[in-house]
Order: sequence, then structure tokens, then C-alpha cells
Amino acid sequence: MQKRSGAEMSFADQTQFTPLVVCELAEDTKEEAVEWLLSRIKEKQRNGGAEFQVSRLLPALSQDDKKENPNIFLVGASWQRLLIGAEDLGLIKEFSDGSMRTFTYANREDFKDFQGDGDGFLSMAECQLIIKHELDTLRAKQETYVPGYPKIKLYPGKSIVRRMHSKGILLQIFPLHDKEELKRLSSTWYQQIRMAFQPLDDIRRYFGESLALYFGFLEYFTLAMLPMAIIGIPYYFFDWENYDNYVVFAICNLIWTTVMLEMWKRFGACLAYSWGTLSRKKAFEEPRPGFHGVLGHNPVTGREEPVYPNAKRHLRIYLVSLPFVLLCLYVSLCVMMVYFDAEGWVLGLHDVEPTFWTGLLLFLPSIVYAVVIEIMNRLYRYAAEFLTDWENHRLESTYQNHLTLKVLVFNFLNCFASLFYIAFVMQDMPLLRQSLATLLITSQILNQFLEAFLPFWLQKRRNKRVQRNESQTALGSKLPFEKQVMLEADMSTYLGTFDDYLELFLLFGYVSLFSCVYPIAALLVVLNNVTEIYSDALKICQVFKRPFSEPAANIGVWQLAFESMSIIAVVTNCALIGMSPQVKSYFPESESQLILLVVAVEHVFLVLKFILAFVIPDIPKHIQIKLARVEFESMEALKKKKMLEAPATPIKGQ
Amino acid sequence: MQKRSGAEMSFADQTQFTPLVVCELAEDTKEEAVEWLLSRIKEKQRNGGAEFQVSRLLPALSQDDKKENPNIFLVGASWQRLLIGAEDLGLIKEFSDGSMRTFTYANREDFKDFQGDGDGFLSMAECQLIIKHELDTLRAKQETYVPGYPKIKLYPGKSIVRRMHSKGILLQIFPLHDKEELKRLSSTWYQQIRMAFQPLDDIRRYFGESLALYFGFLEYFTLAMLPMAIIGIPYYFFDWENYDNYVVFAICNLIWTTVMLEMWKRFGACLAYSWGTLSRKKAFEEPRPGFHGVLGHNPVTGREEPVYPNAKRHLRIYLVSLPFVLLCLYVSLCVMMVYFDAEGWVLGLHDVEPTFWTGLLLFLPSIVYAVVIEIMNRLYRYAAEFLTDWENHRLESTYQNHLTLKVLVFNFLNCFASLFYIAFVMQDMPLLRQSLATLLITSQILNQFLEAFLPFWLQKRRNKRVQRNESQTALGSKLPFEKQVMLEADMSTYLGTFDDYLELFLLFGYVSLFSCVYPIAALLVVLNNVTEIYSDALKICQVFKRPFSEPAANIGVWQLAFESMSIIAVVTNCALIGMSPQVKSYFPESESQLILLVVAVEHVFLVLKFILAFVIPDIPKHIQIKLARVEFESMEALKKKKMLEAPATPIKGQ
Repeated sequence: MQKRSGAEMSFADQTQFTPLVVCELAEDTKEEAVEWLLSRIKEKQRNGGAEFQVSRLLPALSQDDKKENPNIFLVGASWQRLLIGAEDLGLIKEFSDGSMRTFTYANREDFKDFQGDGDGFLSMAECQLIIKHELDTLRAKQETYVPGYPKIKLYPGKSIVRRMHSKGILLQIFPLHDKEELKRLSSTWYQQIRMAFQPLDDIRRYFGESLALYFGFLEYFTLAMLPMAIIGIPYYFFDWENYDNYVVFAICNLIWTTVMLEMWKRFGACLAYSWGTLSRKKAFEEPRPGFHGVLGHNPVTGREEPVYPNAKRHLRIYLVSLPFVLLCLYVSLCVMMVYFDAEGWVLGLHDVEPTFWTGLLLFLPSIVYAVVIEIMNRLYRYAAEFLTDWENHRLESTYQNHLTLKVLVFNFLNCFASLFYIAFVMQDMPLLRQSLATLLITSQILNQFLEAFLPFWLQKRRNKRVQRNESQTALGSKLPFEKQVMLEADMSTYLGTFDDYLELFLLFGYVSLFSCVYPIAALLVVLNNVTEIYSDALKICQVFKRPFSEPAANIGVWQLAFESMSIIAVVTNCALIGMSPQVKSYFPESESQLILLVVAVEHVFLVLKFILAFVIPDIPKHIQIKLARVEFESMEALKKKKMLEAPATPIKGQ
Repeated sequence: MQKRSGAEMSFADQTQFTPLVVCELAEDTKEEAVEWLLSRIKEKQRNGGAEFQVSRLLPALSQDDKKENPNIFLVGASWQRLLIGAEDLGLIKEFSDGSMRTFTYANREDFKDFQGDGDGFLSMAECQLIIKHELDTLRAKQETYVPGYPKIKLYPGKSIVRRMHSKGILLQIFPLHDKEELKRLSSTWYQQIRMAFQPLDDIRRYFGESLALYFGFLEYFTLAMLPMAIIGIPYYFFDWENYDNYVVFAICNLIWTTVMLEMWKRFGACLAYSWGTLSRKKAFEEPRPGFHGVLGHNPVTGREEPVYPNAKRHLRIYLVSLPFVLLCLYVSLCVMMVYFDAEGWVLGLHDVEPTFWTGLLLFLPSIVYAVVIEIMNRLYRYAAEFLTDWENHRLESTYQNHLTLKVLVFNFLNCFASLFYIAFVMQDMPLLRQSLATLLITSQILNQFLEAFLPFWLQKRRNKRVQRNESQTALGSKLPFEKQVMLEADMSTYLGTFDDYLELFLLFGYVSLFSCVYPIAALLVVLNNVTEIYSDALKICQVFKRPFSEPAANIGVWQLAFESMSIIAVVTNCALIGMSPQVKSYFPESESQLILLVVAVEHVFLVLKFILAFVIPDIPKHIQIKLARVEFESMEALKKKKMLEAPATPIKGQ
């Protein structure tokens, strides 16, 4: 945030502060509510306010017939206020001696890169996160309701912003883009095709740790797949039918994925350490906006807040959600069986009397099945969101975990059940190979088109229209700041990394579960990921509203998901190898001996995986030492402080 | 430590302090070294001393021809000094509001049970631990060697006591018993047979958390086995040969052991919370006395200390220790095969020409095998200790973990390899049942006799001899304090809970691995454990020197060992059920279908185990809330402190 773009500068000149965050209220909000909210935001901290600077966005210059919402506010803060906020948030920054320490305002001068009054010390994303955090923790004092809305109750300690958001008065809060910074980032990131790593530190500075970790993982995953992809090429071109080679390939693959996932933890820990999120203590989490219950006292904080019995939630989870998910899984399996029946029926029809129409009919079941799966996925997603909402989780994080788990299981089944059926029930390897190829390639093309390029094109068209309107009224070719804010407010919201991780997860499944049947899959995934990096970067920079930075120390539940997948891969690969005719021919007289051998090998692999996961430390030694040093020093400092204070008094009694 | 026994009181009258810890130097220690050590112990803390009270044990009153060691010292400290030590150690005590907080001398009045000058606030075991900790961290200043011993080098920051201990000048440091307290504890613990839980809190007060957790686990384990023991009784008496029942029994057993181990974590966490060890932060760990290396700088503390490259240690572990352990396991397997061959040969001999001598010969292989195993176990134990020492681990804890792992694996193989062979290679269930019974019963009887009653009897004889000598010279029937100290100094040292846990671990193996073949095993284990509680209590109270209290939050590596055993048990039980003739008769035509089914069931169970372990939280909700509350309050306090200090200065700049 060292330099601001010209448009913003001109705005800053008018209002004496740099706008960071935009706060949009509903158009018909009563003026007293607006006034009250603004006064609370501007109020001094010692009086329970946020002590931020706020100004209303100047009325749009254009004379469109469409009336603009007048209740859009720009929020900013002084550097001192932001630095104090950084301390409240527990940000960890690099100290002058190279270690990472929790930032404190009192010691600000001792931190690296701190110059003058602290301008440029915090990145723009960090400043925006601080503002969001402080707005979120702006609490009601003695107010019993929002002024002008007697029905919207408040109680001491309730977060004002969350209540107004859940009641629809506050429409959205979002951080502003920094056009110049974004341009610089885009040009090093995705605008030219180069052989270089992504600028992860810059991505983190601009979009925060959560997104930077996603792109870091995407890149790591792609590079880690590279050896498998290269080894896979000869299998494809020479069409080696010697199963010994496949066995070697599968074993390499199993060990490789285990090592790769373990090493990612270490690499991720290095990144998180250098970004200061590894040892950051989580602040006490507020209830999520949708959480409801009888007003009671939080057992931890003692504050008044809604309370909802745990037992009731568990009943909802285990008696409603769990059976529902199982039912959905069962229905999905039934649909799959119907698909296979239909396919068999059509195939029989075509074999008996092949005409042009039966030839066309051959494609019908697959198309219908694909459409049905897509519909089921979407319906299920709504149902899962509804159910998880209804389970009434107190924290956003547990809500996300429960939702992720539900969606993950269903998507896994939908994607892989048919492949499992082909592999283990029909035992038709050529068909399995063909299905894998079809699924991989179509899903890749569809995904990237639907996810990034289509929205990008739509957004671009909209921008052009706005710009054209603009050029009719104003003179400059550059958008004025006010228009830019309106444009960003209209962009769609980025809903988090969930779908991106899910896509990676499914690709990982295609590669690992059936690797010994279709070794070229790794190459396809690598190719896909390379374009994925570009399309995702484009998406996040151009298509969506800028997201708030989210501090994250690791990829969370996804690490577990990928590890589970690699465990399932051990089972499937062992089974596939055991089923191959070449291996079977070694045991002509006794099938059960073969099975026992395969099971034994599988168990050995599973044990090996666990031992590897146990032996490889999750955090590299040099970072462990750095963390220990900071902890040791703070303990020593505490001791020395006591040495100066305490012993003089007690021992004199002797 | 509220009241002191008469003998100690009289001593205290003479020397003005309560002796807590005994420090024995070698008889021929040079006087200047003794003087120097004592002066460092007595020195004020601000001058780098320990500020303890020390006095030489008065020369023995008896006129034995055997000369007593004159270099035995008694160490004590004032209450104030101990309270400051408690803060240094990071002890966590109950606060006046019922929560557990880190003790600080400044807030001492706000802790529960703190009265007057703090007498009785710390238990005697805690005081002794504090003294041990402070003696251990007594560091050399500018001395370059121990006075009188120019060869025993010192450098600034080196622990004096550890150096003198490893060089054989300091023979031992041990805590004194409190005879009256011990009597009270024994009477409620093991001296009368009652239907009641063990007084775990009292055990913890007297012996510390590590031992109390062992006894807690022993009791929990016994109670948890009770349902399985009761269900097992009808199987034994009615000799149910219906395998459906065994299947039900095995399934119950598998789920039960998983739930039991998970619930223990929760129960253990409750205990550790109430004892203040759950959230206690480990102080920086010093290198273990035997650790050696080139003098360098510790990367964490920056202090001078020996440094040993990690890579070299890893080479030693993976290139020497690991192959050696594998070789030992292989030799052990070979010995087992020889045993089975010999047994078969003797059996053949007896079948062909049965005489009295061949009848006797039948027992020979078993006896020889048992003796050989015992010898191998002992030799291996020495080798493992030597190797782990040679690996040169920096910390006592990693040393213990590596030693435990080595010994565990070998003992597991020795105990169970023959049973596995009988079960899965010979597939002889009656023999398996018989071997299990023999192993269980003999090991129980032998263990308890060798471990507790024999040493107890020997100790008692020795005590009587001392007492007889005493009564010839002195008048009172009670031992004078000096004699009591000499007596305790001569007792053997308790080497930690390792062997006790190992015994429990092997018993757990007998019960869980083959539960569906021999359901009565659980009952035998329960009976054994009941007597084990009494014999272990007797051992720790009467046979051994009092051990220093060891703070522990859980049973450490043993939790992992028991969980691993329960995973192996899933595999063995599934295999045993699959091998039973009754189950086989359901699949007369296809053996491979049966195997596939068994494998599928096994996998389902393994997945179920992992899900259960994942779903059941390790720390009960109410303790999580208490921990969160303390953390939240300390964060709020920090914030308030800042509110008073910081904002006034920075914001005024505006």
C-alpha cells in the first residue's frame, strides 16, 4: 500500500483520508439508523467506538435514469489507528532481528520495515482486514434496538454490524481494489506466460494468506505431479501391457503421494511462518450471523448472546442430516445403476439392429446421466447448505467444516461411483480407461470455461458498457473513483476457495485412485493445473469483488481430505493390480492365495504410510527452532522482570 | 505437607529448617568441591545461587564398624523461596474462583487454600520437585572447572549438578518420605481390601502426576475390562461352540476397546486438568546428563552447550539401530521356529515310543524356550539401552521414546509371535487357547511375585536387621531421623512406570488380539489387575526410594501403543473369525468370496475406528470451556491494560 493510484489520490485530496473499505446500506434505510451507525464508527475508542474515518460516496456524476444507491460509505483510518488495530488482531510481523513476533504498538520501532509514522508497514489487505475486524466487533452498549427499527433488538455486547447484516439493513462490506497494485500483480502473475513460480508473497500481500495458500498448493501440487506425469508418458505411447511395469508405477505413485502430502505440510508451514500466521493465536470467535437461540450467557466470555444446546444440535446432525446424506448417497447409487442398465439396454438394441438412430441413442444414457448428476449436485448443494444452516452451528468455522464434509462425500460418490463399478464389478479395464479419459478431459474443459472465461467475458462486456456510458458524459478515458467503486460494488462476490479445492481434490482422485490403469492421467492433470493457475488468477483479479484477506496457517480440512484420498488409493490400486490377468496367471491354482497376498501387501502399504506420516515432522526443524527461540526469549524476559520485582520483598522476611 | 512427623520435627528443631531432599556426594569428594557446591546452593538468587538451606547429616549415632558416608546433605528452603520456585516451574493451581491458573507469587493471596505465609499451600512432592528443578538449573558462572577437580570442565551456563552427577562426584539426589503422610496414604490405598476407588488425588499429592496417572489408568483399564469379563464368563462355562456368538463377542470387543481408549483420553484430561498439568507449558528442556558433543551454541537459547549434528544421529538410528533391531526380531523369529521344530520332534518321539523319559521330555522345549526368551529379553534390553545412549539424544524425553519403541517392538514379538504362528500358520485353535491360558496365568503369577513380593520381603528383612542393630544401641523403638535417611538412601531406585505399563500393554494384547478364541481372558486380566493395584502400591510405598514427582498431562507414548494394539486386534479378530469352520461352512463353494468378505468387514471396522476416534473429542466440553475462559480473560486483561496505556498517546497526533 505504498502508493495510491491517481483516481484515489484525487478522492483522498477531497476527503483527507484514504478509503479502504466500502460499506453499503439498503437504499431505504432510515436516516436515524445511518446517523447512529456512522457516529458509532467515528466515535473514539475509549467511548466504545471504532475511531474510523467515514464519508458518504459523492452522488454519481452521471445523469442516468437509473438512480444510484445514496447509502454507500467509504471507511478509512489513520495509520496510528490501524497499527493499534494490528495489535488487537494479533498480527505477527518480522522483527528487526529476523524472527517473527506479535506486533505491539509500543515496540513498533523495532519491527523490520517500520519507518517514520508507519506508512507502508501494513499491507492494504491487512489494513482492510483490521477495519473489517474492528467493525465486526463494534458492540452495542445500552441500546436495546437499532434506532428507527424498534423490532431489530440489540443487547449489550451484541455486534452491531452482524445484527444489521443479518436483518438486511447492511447489504455488504467489501474492500476496495488498488488498481495500480493490481496491475503490477497481474503482470507478474498471469498476464505473460513465463517459466517462473507464482509471486506468492505478492499474492498474499494483496489477497491474504488463505488465497495465497491455495495458489501455493495448486502450484506445489502441479510440480509434485510432474514426475508421475513424465513417468506416465512411455506407458501411454508404448502401450506397455506388461503388468510388472504397472505394479512398479503404482508403488511409486503410492509412496510419492504420501511423501508429497507430508512435504506439503512442511512447505505450507514455511510459507505460513514467513507470513506470520503459523503461530498466530486465534482470537475468540464470534457467533456466525445466522446463529440463533435463547438469549443466555456465553460460558467463556460471560457476555449475553444466543445460546443453543449442544445436545439438540447433535440430535439434528445424527437423526436428520446424517440419514438424509446417506439417503442421497443411496439415491445417487440407484441412479447410477439405472444408467448402467440403460446403457446395457441401448447397447443390446444397437447390437441386434444397428441403425443411425440406435447409433445416436448410444450417446443418450451418458448425456442424460451427466445432466442428472449435475442437477443432483446442485440440488444437493442447496439441501446441504439448508441442513447445515438448520443445524445452527455457533461458529463460522464449524459451519464450514460440516458443509464441506457433506458436499465432499456426495461429490466423491458422484464422481467415482461409476468408475468403481466399472473397475470392481464389471472388471472392464478398457472401459475404465475410456471413462477416465472422458471424465477428466470434459470436466477440465467445462470447468475452466464455466468458472473463469465465461464470467470474465460477461464482466468485460458490462465494464465496456459502463465505460461507454461514461465516455458519453465525462471526458477522461479513465474511470473516475466514484464510478470505480460502483463498478466493484456490482461485481459478484467470491465465495471462498471451496470449489477450487474441490476441483483439485477430484482431479487428485482421478490420478491416484486408478493410476495403475491410466498412467497418462497425471500428465492431463498437470496440463489442466497449469491453465487452472492462469484462469483462477484471472478470475480472482478481474471477475470477482476483491475478497477480504483471511489469515490461515494451513489448508485446513483439505489436508485431511487429500490424505484420506491417498489412503483409499492404496486400497484401489492394490485391488486393481490383484485383478489384472497377468498377476492372476502367477497363481493359476489358488485364487484365495492371490487375494491373501494382495491384502497383505495392502496392509504393509497402509502401515508404511502411517509410519512415513509419523516420521516426517510437520514443521521443518529450522522453523521449530525459530519458534522455540521466541518462546524461550519471552519466558526469560518474564523471569528477568520478576527478578527485578519479586525476590527483594519475600526473602527479606528471613 | 501440613504436619511433619515427630522425628523430623526434632531434627527441624536442631537445624531450623525442614529437610525435603537428600543430596549424597561420593565419600572421597574433595572438601573444596563440597564447600563450593554448598556455597552455590546457599548463595542468594540474585547472585546466581539457589538460596536453599543445607546442612550435613549429623554423624551416625551407632558405633558400627561400618563407616557411614559423611557427605550426605539435607536440603530445604523457606516457604517464600518455594513459592517463587513454584512460579519459576510454572505450576498451575486452583484459583479462588475455581479455575486453574498459573501460580504467580504476586497474586498468591488470590489462590484457593493459600493461608498465612503459604505453609501447606504446596504439597511436599511439589516442594521437592521445585528443589530438584532449581538444583538442576544451578549454572556455572565464571568457573572453568569444579574446584579440586581441574579435569571436570565447566563453562558458563552449564548445569553444575548434572556435570557432577555424570562425573560420579554426586551420587544421588532423592526426596525424603514423610512417614506419617505415607502411613495415612497406605491405609486408604491398599492396606485394607475395600470396594472403593483409589485415592488418586492423595497419590498425586504424594507421588506426583505421572504415577497417579499410571494408577488411574490401571484402575480405569480394570473397570473398563469388567463388562467384557462378565460377558466372557458364559462362553467359558457353557463352552458355546456356536461361532455366531463369538462373532458378536468379537464385534463388541472391537468397538468397546476403541471407545474405552478414547474415553480414557477424556478421563485422563479431566484428571490432568484438576491437577493443573493439562495446560502447563513445558519449560525449556535441558540436555540429558549423558549427552555429549562439540561445545557450541544452542540455537534456541544461545547458551554454550554441547552440540551434536542431527544428521549424524539420524545416520546412527537408520543405519545401525534400525538394522540391529530388525536383526534381533529375525533371530527371535528363528528361535521360535526352532522351538516349534523341537516340540514337533519330541511329540513325534513320544508318539512312537512313549516312556516316562519321553513324557518328561515333552516339557523340555517349552521350558528351554521360556528361559531363552527371558535371556533374550534381558540381553536385548541392555543392547537397546546401549544403542539409544549411543544415538546421543539431546533430551531425556526423546531418549525415553526411542528406548520405549525399541523395547516395545521386541517384547511384542516375543510375546505374540508364537501365538500368531499357532493361530495363522498352524491354525490350531485348541492349542492357541491352551497357550494363551498358560502364558496369561504364569506371567501374572511370576510378575507379581518377582516384582513386588520378593523385593518387599527382602526389604523387610533388611529393615528388621537395621532396627535390631538400632535397638541394641539406642533406646527408642522408633528409628531416629538420621537412621531413617540412611535407610532410604540404601533403598533401590524406582526406575519409572515403563515396566508397569509394558506389563499392562502385553495383558491388553492377550485380551484383545485373540478375544474371540478365548473370551475368558478378560476375566483373568481383571483379576490380575486387582492384585496388581495392590502389589504396585506396596512396591512404590515400601520397596523403593521415594521418586521425584513428575508432572504429566497424559500417559504419553503408551496411548499410541494401546491404540496400535487395538488396530492390530481388528485384523487378527477378523482373520480368526474368517478361519473358523462354522463361518467357512457358509461359503462351501468359494473360499475367495469368504476372504473378500472378511477383508471388507475388516476395512469397515478400521474406518469405523478412525471415525470414532475423530468424532469423540479428546478433551471434554466442560474442560474446553474452562480452558477457553482463562485464555479469553487473559486476552481481555491484556487489552484493557493497553486501553489504559496506549490509545491516549497515538491518537492525539491527529
